[in-house]
Amino acid sequence: MTIGFASPQDAEDAFYDAIDEGAFDTLEALWDPSEEVFSLVPMGAASIGRNAVLTSWQPLFQGGSQIEIEVSHLLWIETEEIAIHLVEERVKLRGQPDQQPPVYATNVYRKRGDGWHLIVHQNSPTPPPPGMLPPQMRMP
Amino acid sequence: MTIGFASPQDAEDAFYDAIDEGAFDTLEALWDPSEEVFSLVPMGAASIGRNAVLTSWQPLFQGGSQIEIEVSHLLWIETEEIAIHLVEERVKLRGQPDQQPPVYATNVYRKRGDGWHLIVHQNSPTPPPPGMLPPQMRMP
Repeated sequence: MTIGFASPQDAEDAFYDAIDEGAFDTLEALWDPSEEVFSLVPMGAASIGRNAVLTSWQPLFQGGSQIEIEVSHLLWIETEEIAIHLVEERVKLRGQPDQQPPVYATNVYRKRGDGWHLIVHQNSPTPPPPGMLPPQMRMP
Repeated sequence: MTIGFASPQDAEDAFYDAIDEGAFDTLEALWDPSEEVFSLVPMGAASIGRNAVLTSWQPLFQGGSQIEIEVSHLLWIETEEIAIHLVEERVKLRGQPDQQPPVYATNVYRKRGDGWHLIVHQNSPTPPPPGMLPPQMRMP
């Protein structure tokens, strides 16, 4: 049921292609087979474990392809077994003008016997425009 | 200038203790010495590279201890060289009633010759209360 990819970047390309194409089976295949996975999408609660993660992504794939995501790479950190990619996503909802602010995403990949799998997807908002930020919210 | 810790958890404890105590020198010591680091705090832009990360944390430490953070662990993923901790943070600003919603944080640690260092800190908001969420914002 799962497919390992030859490199973290191949897994990442497959991830965003699956979203663009509404291909849930690819999403299922590329998420790591273990329970040591989590997903944090905008406005959502953390989904922890393989079933919770896949369940959280299902609505986006109902009715086929619904969004397109343009990705810019900001930083890669790679070890033998783990690759961490920080990217910026520009999400476009099909049939709607592009007006959502970009979001950050961290994607983490893990190397298994059959290749690289996705183990973490975490979105964070980009900062609001200057002047929109109350002083008490500036820090963690 | 940097100090490796005996375990990822020791590094995490030192990180939150440093924030509670306003100890910027500990923060400097525990962040990885390389440029392969990033920090994403609420409402902030991504800080990438050691100098940018440390600079982004400095204001919080000016004037000493300003916040307290209670941490609950949600998931640990650990390999030989990398540890990924997903936690929930409850941030309390000193002298203000506790009314900020909790935030998620992913902390990633990397093992070096001298021990474990922090390489990633990324916050994400927890979901808004039901009814506050416009439908077009439900998905990544």
